[in-house]
Amino acid sequence: MRIEALDDVETTRILREQSIGRLGCIADSEPYVVPVNFYFDGRDIFIHSLPGRKIEALRKTGKGCLQVDEIRDTFNWRSVLLFGNYEEIVDERIRHESMKEIFAKTPSMTPVESALMDRSQLPIVFCLRIYRVTGIGESW
Amino acid sequence: MRIEALDDVETTRILREQSIGRLGCIADSEPYVVPVNFYFDGRDIFIHSLPGRKIEALRKTGKGCLQVDEIRDTFNWRSVLLFGNYEEIVDERIRHESMKEIFAKTPSMTPVESALMDRSQLPIVFCLRIYRVTGIGESW
Repeated sequence: MRIEALDDVETTRILREQSIGRLGCIADSEPYVVPVNFYFDGRDIFIHSLPGRKIEALRKTGKGCLQVDEIRDTFNWRSVLLFGNYEEIVDERIRHESMKEIFAKTPSMTPVESALMDRSQLPIVFCLRIYRVTGIGESW
Repeated sequence: MRIEALDDVETTRILREQSIGRLGCIADSEPYVVPVNFYFDGRDIFIHSLPGRKIEALRKTGKGCLQVDEIRDTFNWRSVLLFGNYEEIVDERIRHESMKEIFAKTPSMTPVESALMDRSQLPIVFCLRIYRVTGIGESW
C-alpha cells in the first residue's frame, strides 16, 4: 500500500482527463460546493455557469477551489485540489474560444444552460487562475 | 426536460443511497473541498477523518457543507447540498456506534486510516448537524 502526494505529471493527467469537478467557494461566510464541468488548458481552469449563488460568491471573494478525483475503490483513488483566483472572461473572442474548448471536452451544456441558450441567454464563462495545487493518492 | 428542486423524499433517498460526498469547509479564509465517506442516519451526517487541515478548519469555523450527487449523464443528474454545524463525537459509546454505521455503509476505512488504526491511532468521528438542505435535479 502506498500513500503519497501526487507529482505534477499525475496531477496534470487527472486535470486533463477528467471533466467533472466540485467547485468550492465561500458564500455568505458558508462553504458552498457544486459539481461543474471544467476544462484545463495546462495552466488554468475554465468553467461555464449560470448566474447564481456561486457566481455572486466568486465575484465577491475573488477565490475558488476545484476538487477533482478518480475513485476506483477504497484502495485506489486520487484527488486533486487546486486553488485559483476568479477571473470572469468578458472578452468575446476569448469567451468564445473557452466555450468551444469546454464543449469539446464536455459535449453538452447542462440542460439548464441549454434551455437558457435557447432563449439567447449566455452562461457566464470564468477562469480559475491556479495559484496552488495539491494532490494525494493511494494505490496497491 | 424537467429542471426542478428535489423534494424531501428524493433528497433523503440520495443521502441514504450514496456513500461518497464532497465535504466543504473554510480553511484560512479559503474554500476547501475533500472527498469523504459518510453515513446519513435520517437526520444528520456522520463522517470519519484523520486529523488535518479539514478538521482544524471545521473546529475553528464550526460549519461545513456536504455535496452529494448522482450523475448519470449530462441530462440525468441530481445534486444535494447540505449545511451543518460541526460536532465532534467524543462520547466513546456514540463514537463506536457511529463508526460501526459508517463502516457498515462503506466497508473499509480509507487506507490512510487503516494504516493509522494498525498503530492504534483512531480517526476522528464527527457529525454535521444539518440546518439546511437544497437539492436540484434534471431528467428527461
